[in-house]
Amino acid sequence: MTGNETNRGRSGGRASRRAMRTAPDFTMLAGLENKLPLCEIMDGAGVERIDNASMDILENTGIQFRDPIALADWKKAGAKVVDEMVYLDRGLVRELIASIPEGFTYRARNRKNDIKLGGRHAMFVPMTGAPYLRDLDDVRRNPTLDDLAMFHKLSHMMPALHSSAHHIVEPYDHPISQRHLRITYSSMKYSDKTFMGMTTSPKNAEDVMDMCAILFGDDVMEQHAVTTGNCNGNSPLVWDETMLGAMRAFSRRNQPVLCSPFVLGGANTPASVPVAVAQLNAEALSALAYTQVIRKGAPAIYGHFLSTVSMQSGAPMAGTPEISQMNFMIGQMARHYKVPWRTSNTLGGAKTFDAQAGYESASTLSAVMHSGANYIWHSAGWNEAGMHCSVAKFVVDAEQCAMAYRLAEGLNWEDFDVALDAVADIGPGGHYLGHQHTQDNFQTAFFMPKLFDNNSIEQWTAEGSIEITQRALNHARNLLDMYEEPKLDPAKDEELLDFIARREYEIPAADELNQSF
Amino acid sequence: MTGNETNRGRSGGRASRRAMRTAPDFTMLAGLENKLPLCEIMDGAGVERIDNASMDILENTGIQFRDPIALADWKKAGAKVVDEMVYLDRGLVRELIASIPEGFTYRARNRKNDIKLGGRHAMFVPMTGAPYLRDLDDVRRNPTLDDLAMFHKLSHMMPALHSSAHHIVEPYDHPISQRHLRITYSSMKYSDKTFMGMTTSPKNAEDVMDMCAILFGDDVMEQHAVTTGNCNGNSPLVWDETMLGAMRAFSRRNQPVLCSPFVLGGANTPASVPVAVAQLNAEALSALAYTQVIRKGAPAIYGHFLSTVSMQSGAPMAGTPEISQMNFMIGQMARHYKVPWRTSNTLGGAKTFDAQAGYESASTLSAVMHSGANYIWHSAGWNEAGMHCSVAKFVVDAEQCAMAYRLAEGLNWEDFDVALDAVADIGPGGHYLGHQHTQDNFQTAFFMPKLFDNNSIEQWTAEGSIEITQRALNHARNLLDMYEEPKLDPAKDEELLDFIARREYEIPAADELNQSF
Repeated sequence: MTGNETNRGRSGGRASRRAMRTAPDFTMLAGLENKLPLCEIMDGAGVERIDNASMDILENTGIQFRDPIALADWKKAGAKVVDEMVYLDRGLVRELIASIPEGFTYRARNRKNDIKLGGRHAMFVPMTGAPYLRDLDDVRRNPTLDDLAMFHKLSHMMPALHSSAHHIVEPYDHPISQRHLRITYSSMKYSDKTFMGMTTSPKNAEDVMDMCAILFGDDVMEQHAVTTGNCNGNSPLVWDETMLGAMRAFSRRNQPVLCSPFVLGGANTPASVPVAVAQLNAEALSALAYTQVIRKGAPAIYGHFLSTVSMQSGAPMAGTPEISQMNFMIGQMARHYKVPWRTSNTLGGAKTFDAQAGYESASTLSAVMHSGANYIWHSAGWNEAGMHCSVAKFVVDAEQCAMAYRLAEGLNWEDFDVALDAVADIGPGGHYLGHQHTQDNFQTAFFMPKLFDNNSIEQWTAEGSIEITQRALNHARNLLDMYEEPKLDPAKDEELLDFIARREYEIPAADELNQSF
Repeated sequence: MTGNETNRGRSGGRASRRAMRTAPDFTMLAGLENKLPLCEIMDGAGVERIDNASMDILENTGIQFRDPIALADWKKAGAKVVDEMVYLDRGLVRELIASIPEGFTYRARNRKNDIKLGGRHAMFVPMTGAPYLRDLDDVRRNPTLDDLAMFHKLSHMMPALHSSAHHIVEPYDHPISQRHLRITYSSMKYSDKTFMGMTTSPKNAEDVMDMCAILFGDDVMEQHAVTTGNCNGNSPLVWDETMLGAMRAFSRRNQPVLCSPFVLGGANTPASVPVAVAQLNAEALSALAYTQVIRKGAPAIYGHFLSTVSMQSGAPMAGTPEISQMNFMIGQMARHYKVPWRTSNTLGGAKTFDAQAGYESASTLSAVMHSGANYIWHSAGWNEAGMHCSVAKFVVDAEQCAMAYRLAEGLNWEDFDVALDAVADIGPGGHYLGHQHTQDNFQTAFFMPKLFDNNSIEQWTAEGSIEITQRALNHARNLLDMYEEPKLDPAKDEELLDFIARREYEIPAADELNQSF
């Protein structure tokens, strides 16, 4: 029996449900429609105060665009530019971001896996960027292309994951300068869900666009989002040439960019939750506005990577209350601007998959759900502040996402009257296990996490006293044994491989490592 | 440096904050005022539908009161009684519960530790009832009175815990029939926070009342809540003699009872989230109403123990989405009836303090905070579905409660303009660590969990690769080394000990074990 694939589907008869119990079903859950009431911790005046503070920053303090093309673009767009500093009038910002679509459909090569984004529509995307993995033996080491393929396969099989992302782990066995090609191919090949595009340099981003054009067609890309690219800001108040060049590569081709200030609260922001958000908001708005300078109407996503900093180590922390508060606030700001937004999920700072990782991840996941985020990134595997991706945590996080998905689906009132009749049938002191309604609905009424052990200690001991890490690794091995590669049109496959061969011939096999979170 | 006591206090100068860094402060956090927007997953029609279904159950299916005194009381109160079945007209129920106070102050022997309950006012209470502990060496074994005292001491020292509860663990080294006396004394002696009263039998409850009268005075008890007693229902739709007798002992003396149906969704309720809540609500209402038959105007708390059941083992699960949904719903119902309500927090089903326990506990805690519960029980130590209380988990959970407390305090806008000035001061590309505002506010702006490790893997390894369980146990040992017993008036102490000696002489040292959750 597999991870999170059995507790779904409120329609269908008993036979179909019995079939679900016996045959694992890896079908992707449809894009999440989050029906939870959202946690709005600011009133209207609070939202205005943040908006106003951000606009003041943009007008008076300014944002540094360390990139001659962007500076020229901004001049043309009517902004005040002094050296590398750009001062953005709030009227101009509002005018520009107004053309960002409130939502869009993110297309997958298997159209059944298309995802709606924006408003209440959301998706879970696995973690990316880990320089280490904890592998199927829980050994921490540098990853390879095979490891990356393994994570793409697991992404493909976990129903609550809506994307295979891109470099879940950094494949160290391939030259950095050519890695983006192999990473993109791996995302495309081993899963037919949506995937992300590398933004490690403007040229790499162009390569990704060209590969997407092979897979989807240029005409489709002109009309539809087929990948997403992340561009990190250098907080405070800086956007650099690499990210801006990658942004142009994506936005010009009508592909959505995540405009993600990289915020470590207290280190590169003031030690104030509301002002950290005001600064982050200014940074995000400046990049969102720039996407519309590049191409009016191109989809774009309000992004951020967000943490607070440990005073002891300077490292980002996870699962702290201020991170939750900032997520709530940023959700409110993004809705205020009517732009889809991205956050980070299930983050852990623990070195192993211990209870710390569990608390951190679940706290983050909960805040993310109540904040109403659309693009829910880093939803599986993240531990050690992103330094490693854990196979065990990957599959547990993915099941946690399935549980959050269930939570966000809202209440099922459909069988209310029938279930109420059961109360009268059973009466005081009875039990419901034998009742027809229970037998018909037990399987679907309550989520049964497969990776949590709820046996008695006697049974648990008899089964070898296996803690969650080992159970999860066993589960991952089982999944991989059952993996079936989703068919890729051989002609496109060949064209992709030809493209990679040509580019690998052209690109020298030495470059610098760039990571994006 | 201790657990969760340093990240508080937004007032006071730098000197006082520096003092906080060096001297551990075990002062209890004031009763929580939960400022989070609550997660109301039902609209008004949903609340009415549940209310109506519950009232239908009470009128037509009826509730069994297996207790001749209660049956006589109900007859006198105008209910229809047939054998042991009581049929409650909705008008009578509404009339009775209307006299339950919306809130009250829960008095501690140290009046600085008094707690407001009701509305947005809430408290964290440690777990109780564990037949095993995982001790300071993480060994699972039966507990003793000394172990219980240890947990009472830890409860006393953890700032976010507002109570020492009662039998956190079952002291197996003392006869069952006399245990309630020693447990109550231990709660009273080792902490000066609020505590709970045993309800294991009507006579035991009377003993607790008498001990409270010694500690607080009968006159005080007539006016104020000085303890709380839990009475579990036998779902579906049964209240038994033991619990009803204990309820009478408490309510007659004006002490609040938690009216707690014990719900295992799908086993003793239908397999439907809304109908499980409708049944639970009917059960809770019937007992809440009965408290007012016993004594009109006595404080009472809408309670429940709530879980969904594992199909594999029949054991209660923790951290599942339906448990969160039910918490949200019950919060809405309790607010609808204007009655304070109790829930269960940080529950784990894991056999050890592994990542499973972390996910389960944090998921539950989050739902509890967003549901607006008042009496947040089982807030520290609960694992293995309540079969053991873990010392390690106890201190970590208590720190998690401090983090949730911070989350629920809401945003600090006080220094908004000053912090915003820092953004202009620092400008693009700088960092804030050296800025005066950061130095003044870092300590208080961001919660720094002491039991989470955020060091690099190199440093973590150099320090011995210690996972959270061992770190937490080390922390607990340090706390216990620093424990100072809160002074108890020697005359009262003597009177309590005399009372115990007399009752232990009177009560035969053999009885049955009753647990309440």
